[in-house]
Amino acid sequence: MTDLQIAKGVSLQHISSIAEKFGIDPDNIELYGKYKAKLPLNAINREKAQNSNLILVSAISPTPAGEGKTTMSIGLSEGLNRLGKKSTVVLREPSLGPVFGIKGGATGGGYSQVLPMEDINLHFTGDFAAIEKAHNLLSAIIDNNIQSKTNSLLLDPRTIGWKRVMDMNDRSLRHIIVGLGGTNSGVPRETGFDITAASEIMAILCLAESLSDLKKRLGNIFVGYTYDKKPIYAKDLKAEGAMTALLKDAIKPNLVQTIEGNPAIIHGGPFANIAQGTNSVIATLMGMTHSEYTVTEAGFGFDLGAEKFFDIKCQSAGLTPKAVVLTTTIRALKYHGGADLKSLTEPNVATLKKGLPNLEKHLENIGKFKMVPVIAINKFVSDTEEEIAIVKELAASKGIRVAVANVWAQGGEGAEELAKAVIEIVESEASAFKPLYDWKSSVKDKIATIATEIYGAEYVDYTAKANSNLRKITDLGLDHLPVCIAKTQKSLSDNPKLLGRPKDFIITVREIEIAVGAGFLIPITGDIMRMPGLPTRPSSEGIDINDDGEITGLF
Amino acid sequence: MTDLQIAKGVSLQHISSIAEKFGIDPDNIELYGKYKAKLPLNAINREKAQNSNLILVSAISPTPAGEGKTTMSIGLSEGLNRLGKKSTVVLREPSLGPVFGIKGGATGGGYSQVLPMEDINLHFTGDFAAIEKAHNLLSAIIDNNIQSKTNSLLLDPRTIGWKRVMDMNDRSLRHIIVGLGGTNSGVPRETGFDITAASEIMAILCLAESLSDLKKRLGNIFVGYTYDKKPIYAKDLKAEGAMTALLKDAIKPNLVQTIEGNPAIIHGGPFANIAQGTNSVIATLMGMTHSEYTVTEAGFGFDLGAEKFFDIKCQSAGLTPKAVVLTTTIRALKYHGGADLKSLTEPNVATLKKGLPNLEKHLENIGKFKMVPVIAINKFVSDTEEEIAIVKELAASKGIRVAVANVWAQGGEGAEELAKAVIEIVESEASAFKPLYDWKSSVKDKIATIATEIYGAEYVDYTAKANSNLRKITDLGLDHLPVCIAKTQKSLSDNPKLLGRPKDFIITVREIEIAVGAGFLIPITGDIMRMPGLPTRPSSEGIDINDDGEITGLF
Repeated sequence: MTDLQIAKGVSLQHISSIAEKFGIDPDNIELYGKYKAKLPLNAINREKAQNSNLILVSAISPTPAGEGKTTMSIGLSEGLNRLGKKSTVVLREPSLGPVFGIKGGATGGGYSQVLPMEDINLHFTGDFAAIEKAHNLLSAIIDNNIQSKTNSLLLDPRTIGWKRVMDMNDRSLRHIIVGLGGTNSGVPRETGFDITAASEIMAILCLAESLSDLKKRLGNIFVGYTYDKKPIYAKDLKAEGAMTALLKDAIKPNLVQTIEGNPAIIHGGPFANIAQGTNSVIATLMGMTHSEYTVTEAGFGFDLGAEKFFDIKCQSAGLTPKAVVLTTTIRALKYHGGADLKSLTEPNVATLKKGLPNLEKHLENIGKFKMVPVIAINKFVSDTEEEIAIVKELAASKGIRVAVANVWAQGGEGAEELAKAVIEIVESEASAFKPLYDWKSSVKDKIATIATEIYGAEYVDYTAKANSNLRKITDLGLDHLPVCIAKTQKSLSDNPKLLGRPKDFIITVREIEIAVGAGFLIPITGDIMRMPGLPTRPSSEGIDINDDGEITGLF
Repeated sequence: MTDLQIAKGVSLQHISSIAEKFGIDPDNIELYGKYKAKLPLNAINREKAQNSNLILVSAISPTPAGEGKTTMSIGLSEGLNRLGKKSTVVLREPSLGPVFGIKGGATGGGYSQVLPMEDINLHFTGDFAAIEKAHNLLSAIIDNNIQSKTNSLLLDPRTIGWKRVMDMNDRSLRHIIVGLGGTNSGVPRETGFDITAASEIMAILCLAESLSDLKKRLGNIFVGYTYDKKPIYAKDLKAEGAMTALLKDAIKPNLVQTIEGNPAIIHGGPFANIAQGTNSVIATLMGMTHSEYTVTEAGFGFDLGAEKFFDIKCQSAGLTPKAVVLTTTIRALKYHGGADLKSLTEPNVATLKKGLPNLEKHLENIGKFKMVPVIAINKFVSDTEEEIAIVKELAASKGIRVAVANVWAQGGEGAEELAKAVIEIVESEASAFKPLYDWKSSVKDKIATIATEIYGAEYVDYTAKANSNLRKITDLGLDHLPVCIAKTQKSLSDNPKLLGRPKDFIITVREIEIAVGAGFLIPITGDIMRMPGLPTRPSSEGIDINDDGEITGLF
């Protein structure tokens, strides 16, 4: 059965019932049809939220297919609910563009899904569209100001880093020239489109704690310089009020349900390389206000998403996580041991053993945040008992909890062992969360701490451009911002080919971007794809809908 | 009081109550918050719809500010309801882009508004975003196919007319070059962005009668030619299934309410020059299924919007309108008499009289469709009794009904006189609708009929390019399609400077575009703006929102 078929077999509850179960009066939610709703910001209570146990689901360095963090998060939350703990899973929203490429949806899988999956994977409640609109409004205002004769800030078009965004896999928009066609149609300049998930506004929305905080952050977006080198921010263009108005609904978190009828909150979807890679602070606080356990995930491996979750999101919002679930797959361990992608389903104990150092490094990294992990082996049909035993032995030798989680095939039932381990960690107060670095350190110190402690690099090298960027950052008075390192997810290093646990490598910072609105700096360590392309045969070719509105081919 | 202030003073009813009043079980609607809903397609009943009296609100040639057709339509529907006739107003959705330019919203004005105006003017229920996505998915698929090595249709990039769209006033996107940046980022080619309302998909959605009809029309979109001159349609790229899936909710009409608590349906928003300029067929049929009177409007003046409403929409969907309301303002008549824009509020009987021929020509045009009109004088504070008397005299001399409608200041009460006139026309069965031309005529005959009969031209001239386009149209077997002439709205002629009732002019067809999906040809007679720009000081600068989510500056 495909995920879509499984999803369609579920009899959904009206979202008002889910809201009641979650603890919000159905009169106070905004329905989007019968199965989706926006939750009101005033249903967040900081004090109550502090009593919730925040669980982060992360993963070892992933294979190209991903290791199933979303599925694991959903399954774990179901499992916790089965054990009598009121739990809510809080996730990112899927990006629409990749749905028509290769990826399919991003709403879990098998019997661990959030529903209605077709809606969540398509337009959902319009949040991405609103973010796209707010982003492109600023772009239009910038080019309009350059075109303007009387209202001009004298922006130097060559200094503008603010592009446009579209939630579409469209490689032809990566590098474009706009403003052609004569004097009435703008000033020609080089620019491009990123996918909407890569918009700084996505990052901003996911760190904002209120509409006024959102507006302030939007106003702080760095646009470029005037010809006489004065920095220009969105607020200098008086753009932030209208941009915030466009986001008035997008800032509200979305309530949906899991296959087992438990509440799920899905809100925001920033990248985990150039941005913080986790759902919104508002959604997390909403989940925590109304739940004993709040299960959330951060993008890619622990080195990327989780580090940012801890150092950027948790520090920014004052969150104290209680446990880490490290999603691990037998196939990914074999991949890190040197097996090629096609042979990952074949039993191979020797290669598996060679891949274990990747897992070990991520476990060590978790310890650097004073967090206690549980290894969740995301069960695949091809896994052998012998292979699983090897991971269990490793865990035992280190005194680390491990659970096999069969969440795809069994839903919450398959996650009960994992849920028990999580409850043990929480109830024994084993974790004592501590961020890795102090935001007040110098930018180079912050980068060096992450690169050496987490990635395992020898040291950090800076290109001339990166050093020039650093001087600009100092001039703008932005040294106090945390760093959101853009790095490949395929390796702990900045070289996607170095699998396992690379050693003796250098991290090279090529440039450092400024995301003042979001509130971080982005050291770039490689080619980061911000606008994917479609494959030769896009999955859109197989998607269809009949006259009853039933979609096929989405997965 | 601003429109927004008036709107905020209204105590809104829950949209479920409006649905009940309209005649649809609230269980069958999809709520979008408390005050917006999507209506199910199965609530349309063709037989019932035929019993409804369809009233078209049109206008004389407008001033740049517009003459208030939307406000008039809303007011008239309120007036009909006050007189005991169950009436629903069916309107187009506003475009978001212009909201940040000069225009403000498009939800009526004063005491004749549809609500909630902030939501309707911003993202509403996401229809425009969905249309934009479906459009740009096809664009991405086209460029992906050009990039592809193994799946290529060998499309000649120089023949592709399909651009991208964005609902934003962004002049810099009119003429762009995409696909720069090397072999991995597409094939460089010239293209551009139109505003979303100008998308052929908007026109398609508004003429489609079901999901399968929508899919068929989307598949018929003409993309361009292969290098060996074979025409390529969207279906050749297998794009129509996924595009239709993206539109599964956008095809459903939106229910909102008027200030006086009557149902209003708002759905679709195509341009009235390059497209048919009226709301969706589905929305009109939905209104007609459940109402004794269905009041709708068509864009710009009668020569543009109404001609297309009758010849394209009514013929396509088999609709029989029963009366025409010709919205007229004293200020527009003075404008056509030669007064400059700044002096329109000053009494000026002589200039007003000079402007009457514009009104007379539109009245004659209405007669050519065998329709009976009522002149609705849209009352402004600056109008004098003497000026109004002159219009009434003209009407009396021609035996045409006329009513002063004070809909802005008085809502439905101000439209009772107009509503009575409409009821008289309907109950006396005075109209005997007949389209102007037969779709089966030759393309040049169809164009000539409209140009001479409606615009008042001497004859039609064709550029070499237009004649070449005609040969292409014949080769593709598309001569049977109706013509949707793109012409300035400012004049009955194709020269925006010829006000009043121009005579002895020639219409020049510069080129003829193909909209096979929508099902019409587009003869272009002038510079048609498909992507507006922002003004020097965009209205976005004055838009703001507070922490309670209250928006200011939208109007």
